[in-house]
Parts: sequence; C-alpha cells; structure tokens
Amino acid sequence: MSRFRQKCTRCGKHFPFSLKGRCECGGTLLVEYDLEQVSRSLHPSVLRERSATMWRYMELLPLEHEKSIVTLGEGWTPLLPMNPLERELDIQGVYLKREEQNPTGSFKSRGFSSTLSLLKEHGVDHVAVPSNGNAASAMAAYAARAQIKSTVIVPKDCPGIIIEECLRYSALTYVVDGMIHDASCIIEEGVKEQGWFHAGTLKEPGRVEGKKTMGLELAEQLGWKLPDVILYPTGGGSGIIGMWKAFQELHQLGWVSGSLPRMVSIQEEGCQPLVDAMTSGAFTASPPDSVRSNPTGLRVPNPPDGELVVRILKQSQGAAVSVTAEEIQSAQKRLGRLGISSSPEGAATLAGLLQLQEKGWIARSETVVLFNTSHADKYLPYAPSTTVPIIKTYADLRKHLQKSAGAS
Amino acid sequence: MSRFRQKCTRCGKHFPFSLKGRCECGGTLLVEYDLEQVSRSLHPSVLRERSATMWRYMELLPLEHEKSIVTLGEGWTPLLPMNPLERELDIQGVYLKREEQNPTGSFKSRGFSSTLSLLKEHGVDHVAVPSNGNAASAMAAYAARAQIKSTVIVPKDCPGIIIEECLRYSALTYVVDGMIHDASCIIEEGVKEQGWFHAGTLKEPGRVEGKKTMGLELAEQLGWKLPDVILYPTGGGSGIIGMWKAFQELHQLGWVSGSLPRMVSIQEEGCQPLVDAMTSGAFTASPPDSVRSNPTGLRVPNPPDGELVVRILKQSQGAAVSVTAEEIQSAQKRLGRLGISSSPEGAATLAGLLQLQEKGWIARSETVVLFNTSHADKYLPYAPSTTVPIIKTYADLRKHLQKSAGAS
Repeated sequence: MSRFRQKCTRCGKHFPFSLKGRCECGGTLLVEYDLEQVSRSLHPSVLRERSATMWRYMELLPLEHEKSIVTLGEGWTPLLPMNPLERELDIQGVYLKREEQNPTGSFKSRGFSSTLSLLKEHGVDHVAVPSNGNAASAMAAYAARAQIKSTVIVPKDCPGIIIEECLRYSALTYVVDGMIHDASCIIEEGVKEQGWFHAGTLKEPGRVEGKKTMGLELAEQLGWKLPDVILYPTGGGSGIIGMWKAFQELHQLGWVSGSLPRMVSIQEEGCQPLVDAMTSGAFTASPPDSVRSNPTGLRVPNPPDGELVVRILKQSQGAAVSVTAEEIQSAQKRLGRLGISSSPEGAATLAGLLQLQEKGWIARSETVVLFNTSHADKYLPYAPSTTVPIIKTYADLRKHLQKSAGAS
Repeated sequence: MSRFRQKCTRCGKHFPFSLKGRCECGGTLLVEYDLEQVSRSLHPSVLRERSATMWRYMELLPLEHEKSIVTLGEGWTPLLPMNPLERELDIQGVYLKREEQNPTGSFKSRGFSSTLSLLKEHGVDHVAVPSNGNAASAMAAYAARAQIKSTVIVPKDCPGIIIEECLRYSALTYVVDGMIHDASCIIEEGVKEQGWFHAGTLKEPGRVEGKKTMGLELAEQLGWKLPDVILYPTGGGSGIIGMWKAFQELHQLGWVSGSLPRMVSIQEEGCQPLVDAMTSGAFTASPPDSVRSNPTGLRVPNPPDGELVVRILKQSQGAAVSVTAEEIQSAQKRLGRLGISSSPEGAATLAGLLQLQEKGWIARSETVVLFNTSHADKYLPYAPSTTVPIIKTYADLRKHLQKSAGAS
C-alpha cells in the first residue's frame, strides 16, 4: 500500500491519492497515512536531526519524492512565551506562534509550500487562487520558486502591500469587484477554459496538510505536550482542520496522550458564520450582503466546508468568538507595546483571549496558544505601483488575457 | 577567570567585561571568550538539542545569566539554496541567508536581542539609537520586550513603514534633518543630559556579538564547512566584524578548518567609503556633502571603525563592490521572479555577485552566500500615521521632551 491515500470526511469512503479535494458526495477529502509505515522512519528522536522547516515532517506530507519539495524556508516558526500577558491575565501559559516569520510574511507559506510541491510532482503548469490577500501572495511566491505560472484574484479592498507582493512574485494579478467567493467563481471558469489548477481552500489536499504542520510543531515545541486551548483566527478554516488532523495523527502515533486542545475560532463581528453556527447549532453561510467586516483573512462569509470546521470546534469542546474592529485595534497596540508586530487576524486572537478569560472559560492552570498569522506591515495603506485590472466576471478577465496576448 | 572579557582591536589591551565599546586608545573593544571553558558545555553535538534561535550559542554570547535573555525568536534563519541562480551563473553553490525572517523583519533583531539582554543584565533603564531605520525598529521591539524605555532617531528620509514600526513598538521616535551620524551626535548629548545608554554601532559589545551568530549559523547550516565567499551589504560594518569574529572563534574551537571565507562588502554608489578605502589603501570617511545614495542601511558615510572593517576585508582576501541603484532594482526584480522578497540592501548583494562573476572573481566550484538583510515591504512609500517630530539638534529634542513632560 502507498504511504497515503484519501478519505472523505462525510461518507467515509477511501480513494487512492489524487489532487482532488472533494468527494462526489460533497464531503472534503483528507489525506490518510499508513502511520505504521510512517513511524518506521519518523520518530521524535530523529526529528532533532531534521531541518528547521515544516519539511522535517516529510513522512506526514503527501509527497512521493523529496526532490519535488518547493521550499522557501517555511515553518518551524518561534513559539514565544508571552510572560507579561501570563502575569496580567493570570494564566499559567500564554504563547504566541509567530507565523509572520514565514518566508512570505504569513502562515500561508506552509499551505503553498506543500501544494506547489504536489503540483510540481503532478506536472501542473498553471495554478490559480482566490484569496483575501496572504494566500495570493504566498502562492505567487511558491509558484515563482517552482517556476509554475500563477494567477491570483483578490478583492478590490485587499491591502495594497499584499497586492504589491503578488506583482513582485510575478503572478498574473487581478482584483475582483466582489468578495473571495466571487473570485473563486471566476477561477472555476478559468479552470474549464484555460486549464488552470484551482488551489483555493479545500480544493486540493496540499494546503490542509501544510497547515497541519502548525499543529505538529506546537506539539514538538512544547515537548510533545499539547496546549489546553488554541485560539486561531478563522476565515476558510483549513488551519483548524489541519491542526485537528495533526493532533489525531500524533495521538494515533502515540507521541501525545491525554485530551486534545480546545479549538477556538476567532472571527470579526460583521462576518462570523462560524460563531453563528456554534450558537444556532447548524452551519449556514453568511449572506454576502450582510458582511460588514474589514478586508482581512477573517472575512470569509462562505467557508468551503463550514460544517466540518464547526464539527471540529464542537468535538474539541472549543468555541467560536467574535471580536470587534476596536477590540482588534486595541489588542494590536497592546502587542506592539510588548514588542510584537501583529496583523489584525493575529491581534484578534488576543482580543478573543481577553473575552474568554473574562468569562472564566480558561482556567488559571491552563496553557493557551495565540496565532499571529501575518505581519502588521502588510496592512498599512498603500497603492500598488502598477495598475491592477479590476474584473467582475471571467469574461472581463478573458478580455485582459486577450489584450496581453495581442500585445506580446 | 570569567568566561569572557574584552580586548582592544587596536592596542591589544585586555579589560574585564563592561558595556564599553571603545578603548581609551580609540580602538574597538571586542569580547574575548575563554574557549576552553566554552567548549566544556558547547559542542556541535549538543547544538541539536538547542532552540532554533541565535541563543543556541549562549556560551558564545557575553551574558552571565540565562534569565537575562531578551528574545523575540531571532536567528536560525533559513539558508536557502538558490538553484536557478547557480545554473544561470554557473556557480556551484549560491545560498541566500533570509534575515528578513527575523522577528522585526530584519537582521537587526540579532544585535538588539543580545544588546537588550546585556542592558537588562546590567540594569540600564533607557536606551537610545541612531539608525537608518531597521536598527531603530529592532531596538524599539526588543526594548519593549525588555520593558526598557527607548529613544530612536532616524533620518528624515527613512522609509515611513520603518518609522511606523518604531511607533508601534512604542519607542520615542524622532527624525533628524541630517544623516545617521547627526542622529548619533544628538544621542551623545542625551547620554550626558538624560543618562541614556547609546546603543549605536560599536558603542557597546552586544550588537557585534549578536551579529556574530550569523557566522556561527552559516557554519552549522553548511555542516561545519565555511562558504568560499560571503557577500554582505555593508553600512556600519558590524556584521562583517561579527561574522569574521565568529569564524576565528570556530577555528580556534577546532569546529571548522581550512581557509576562511573571502568577505565582500557591498555598498551603493554615492556612499561607498569602504569601496574607496579598498582602492586607495586607507580608510577615510566620505564627506557627508558627497553622499548621493538612497536612504537604506547602506548609507553610512562614516562607519565607526571603518579601518577595522577594511582590515578584515583585506585579511580575508575579500573585496568591496559598489553597485548602482539601477542594478539594485534589477536584482530585486530578479529575486522577486524567484519567489524572494528582498530589501534594496539584500538585492545589492546579488548585484554585487553579478559584477564579481563577470570579472571572473568567483570560481565555478565555489560556494557563495548572499545576505538578504531585510524585507522588501518595509521600503514601500508610506506616510506614518502619527506626526513624528523633526529635529536638527539635541536642543530641539529637549524642547519636545519638555513639551510632553508638561502635557503629562
């Protein structure tokens, strides 16, 4: 048997590994490893000899050949103890996972390192992604490293510096007069007409597996003990899915024991489908017209598999918390005064912690991990140096393609 | 004997360790370790168990107590093989040291992690630094982490995003109508009147020691082999001094053998005192009026110990190369197309490599390391969110201090 195959999270059916992200039944396909085979070469003791990147967990990533790895030096980011917060909040352990120290300045480096490695292994030549920003910039960088063509579509109000990053990495870059799901629809058409590969959230197995390494690292960095609570800024939710998967695998491997962390999704007021689902009991997408929040990675009204994310939050005895823009800003300032540059998404996890601590949801003896997913600088106001085409439909994009084909 | 003391690079005299950076004779005081004592607890084999930060080399840093360490998760940055450049330039090994992945987005994290640790250990309560930008932002962050007050002074044309970072980390931030040495003069007066500690280049022993860890890491990451050539963007030169010191120590410890790397300083045309010194044979500061280059970390017309830097370049059989703004820009684009976000300083090292390769200065069989010292995003045009006082003299700064003291 191959070291890995796929399994549907809904119907439970198994499939040989492919680049598909979705089962015919509509469920999400996740990678399942032959953990006995994995444990023959991977063990905590051998990890000491491995590189300080997420590829130290090579056996738990769905790649056949080491030479397919597309790396820019991602993962193994610091897990920083936040002693002043521990004292001020009277919580025994508060850690910050500094994902902004990844090569593209955000946690998105992980997912695209594994996805672009997969695409290289499987011979894909043009990849496209809809994104609120950081996924676009990360994909652009990894596609450049892999020398695979890339197209990214971000919302019109995406931070200008992140758009500039996409251009820097030479992605074909468009802004959509709409939101991330509108960008995804346009890419669906490009898949049919141009043969692009769609690397959106849960469209293929690589990104969840890459995100999974955040969970593996937490366990290893804490000496194979898991934290009690993880506060994670949640948009599409692949980080929650990935980390939960990491903990299951580590448990099955016998490297960790005891109860798994309570997973907490942090969202911004004005776009909080997961928070609403945890209250109402059932997941439904937020109507796009109701969205009032800021253009950050948190603004995903329609996560591709919200049901799965909610199931994990519940199973972990976790929660979903919405925070206001003001709470985010104040948390950002507080982190700044402690020497930390945090993105709105990252600061949102501190804002969430403050709420949960006030409610008594976190015990004094517990250990909590906050995720700073991206760097603050990316969100400073800036107008890109090059005019980026604004599109509303795939037809608009096609016109731009034809124009540039005519020009060259 | 203590594990470390200081030695003057000019008169050779030894001193017990203090926070002084300069000998009475005018020479630079560098830290000297009792390497026999060091090697009792530090050895390549124990490093595997150590943290993925520069503090893995704790015994080679001048701190008495581990609890004094002020860390934000700095060092152990990726050393990325640049295969496409190897092929295109026909050089066997081209690596990029990704210093932008440090906590403050630049290599300056290292120096200030060690300096602020020292200042904490020695009970300093207010630290000040003159800087072209990245040192200011790094010091602000580490001072915030150490809960030590900080004042930073940067040139008027310092990139706005870097000024914003200083404000974010709550440093008292000023811009000087002049250059980095003008900022330094103002701080000298603040030292006398306010009791500030001056943490400028070579003013104290911590920063060189922190920068030294770049050299230690290169050796460890290359399996205790040293590269043939190091291309380093040089302003004040403490990185050159620090890395050269690292190689000496490693040699004496017996962890590396053979010839040491040829050290190459890269400067920008329009402010190239080191390049001029390598041609003329003797170091002299560039007259400030002659400076025509861009406001980056490379623009230091009067490095505090230019003689020492030039001596190292010569001793290593290295070189100094000046590159134009256009060459820098074109190298930045080239790196972007390879998935790398590079600062002007970092891109300058690729521009330098292209010149040296064309001249035949680098053999096909050699291994070359480029340093990307900072992140590209920091240099995008941006106006800080808060008005920062512009000063020309210390008297101007004092007025602002009095105003804010009156207001509070």
